[in-house]
Amino acid sequence: MSTRLASDVVLRVMREQLVALGAAGADHVAASLVSTSLRGTDSHGIGLFPHYVRAVTAGRVAKAPRIEPVQESGATCVLDADHAFGHLSGSVAIAKACDLAESVGMGAVAVRNSTHFGAAAYFALQACERGYLGFAFTNADALVRAWGGRARGLGTNPICVTAPLEREEPLCLDMATSAISWNKVLGARRRGEPLPPNVASDSSGEPTTDANAAAMVEPVGTYKGYGLGLVVEMLCGVLSDGPIGHELLPMFTSPIEARRKISHFFMALDPARFVPADRFRTRLQALVDSLRGLGSAEHPVLVPGDPEKAIYLERARDGIPIDQPKLDELLAVTPDFQAAIL
Amino acid sequence: MSTRLASDVVLRVMREQLVALGAAGADHVAASLVSTSLRGTDSHGIGLFPHYVRAVTAGRVAKAPRIEPVQESGATCVLDADHAFGHLSGSVAIAKACDLAESVGMGAVAVRNSTHFGAAAYFALQACERGYLGFAFTNADALVRAWGGRARGLGTNPICVTAPLEREEPLCLDMATSAISWNKVLGARRRGEPLPPNVASDSSGEPTTDANAAAMVEPVGTYKGYGLGLVVEMLCGVLSDGPIGHELLPMFTSPIEARRKISHFFMALDPARFVPADRFRTRLQALVDSLRGLGSAEHPVLVPGDPEKAIYLERARDGIPIDQPKLDELLAVTPDFQAAIL
Repeated sequence: MSTRLASDVVLRVMREQLVALGAAGADHVAASLVSTSLRGTDSHGIGLFPHYVRAVTAGRVAKAPRIEPVQESGATCVLDADHAFGHLSGSVAIAKACDLAESVGMGAVAVRNSTHFGAAAYFALQACERGYLGFAFTNADALVRAWGGRARGLGTNPICVTAPLEREEPLCLDMATSAISWNKVLGARRRGEPLPPNVASDSSGEPTTDANAAAMVEPVGTYKGYGLGLVVEMLCGVLSDGPIGHELLPMFTSPIEARRKISHFFMALDPARFVPADRFRTRLQALVDSLRGLGSAEHPVLVPGDPEKAIYLERARDGIPIDQPKLDELLAVTPDFQAAIL
Repeated sequence: MSTRLASDVVLRVMREQLVALGAAGADHVAASLVSTSLRGTDSHGIGLFPHYVRAVTAGRVAKAPRIEPVQESGATCVLDADHAFGHLSGSVAIAKACDLAESVGMGAVAVRNSTHFGAAAYFALQACERGYLGFAFTNADALVRAWGGRARGLGTNPICVTAPLEREEPLCLDMATSAISWNKVLGARRRGEPLPPNVASDSSGEPTTDANAAAMVEPVGTYKGYGLGLVVEMLCGVLSDGPIGHELLPMFTSPIEARRKISHFFMALDPARFVPADRFRTRLQALVDSLRGLGSAEHPVLVPGDPEKAIYLERARDGIPIDQPKLDELLAVTPDFQAAIL
């Protein structure tokens, strides 16, 4: 990955392309993809842009969705996303969850009829901008081995939790409930690299490190990740009354015009309803610092979000690295990306 | 474990003993311990009773606590448990969370100055009795290796999520964020058994299967369990403004009169604010059934709570198995337990 792209140019070109297509949510899609790449999560960053362009062109993603509340009460809301870009519907939903938290201290919003929303952190971090704890979940097509069995049962159903800190960017845990994300399997396939052991199985459920043979991934922490994935599916697909994992079409191998009806779930919680806001931040900072202080140069201890913060500093300065196949795909969308090459 | 005890007799004797000691919460402590043993979670069941009797006798647990709200708003509440039995303060808290959910759809309650609360499922299942999703978390003294380092960073900080099903007892995920619970390490020590590989480290942070050498346990799923454990600590210790993991005294090796100031966090969510209640139960049941349907006789697929339901059926019929050292400890508290032996 020797080529690097200027993030501000990438952001501008992506936004322009989506606006030219007439797609609502151009700002959020572009901001999510670029910030996610800057944070080092290449599996959910700018490399997905060509897919999103195809999806909105073909009609999987609605260009002019009507995102509307289906049901609403004191601390809760259900939104129908009308097949909007997930980056847009998720941003509408986390804003709604924050509004509810402002009103009663906590808000929970389920979203149905959405599309792939990229990195969950993009939404949960928006809650921190308002001083709240953020929670973001999404379902996905079934790719994770049902623990004990030999077949795919649930999606990689991620869990993201964020919280504001005193002296730095928020704490941010953003984890698939699988041992590896499917986009990372696809990345290994593309680069011709093997997978780590114990993260994937072939189509008969036997463990494999061959990325091409991988037909499903393992839940993280055996039955515990499987159980958490089921909880995420319950919060997303069941609470929103949308399709559940094994009913969802795969992201890349389905007809590109087919609508996927992804469901998400978001929460925001105002820490000031529990403890003074500045004390929350000070004590969470002290907790985080105490954990880091347990490490040494040889055995560093990080907290969730630390690797992303370090990569962000480096990439904001030096640009976003990209491999040639992914760069070619971007340039095939528009040669305007040429201007981003550093 | 050839001796079996009649659960109804154990329940009665425990309740009588605690009432005789003048301890508030006797019903909840006895019900939690017996139901937890019936569900097969021996690490958090009736074997803890002698410890609890010592704790309440010595003053670690308050006999007549005043459990009172410190702060309260639309969907949130902070309770000061005044060193009550955790089984009592947790029951008060989940009831409060359910009241908030009844009012605004969702409720979140943080509890400070509490004590060991036993199995988290005991509380989250109470939310299901009211038709709600239940969430229960607690912090604990630092026993889990800080990921990357060589020292203990966080407690085994469990996550419990429950939800009502259509045709059976609730779905119930109750998991430590460690690869194994500390009480299971103690059980292996007591029985002279080795630990599974990759679940514990010695005092220098090196992996060990020797239960006696184990000084800390591993987070489940490497950095993901560590991250989830940190989230649990944030929800419990930081939101409630109580001590955090490394400030908490160990359960068994501290002076028995020392107060531990454990913090908990509970949530209840009314699914009917999102989707009709019966539809929620029907669809969650269908999801659970579809996962089970992916299994075979040779490779069964279970969902969270299934092992506990199977053990419950067996133990409700045949009694609770107990090993001789644990039985001797119960009989040392009171010979009344003799009447429970089957």
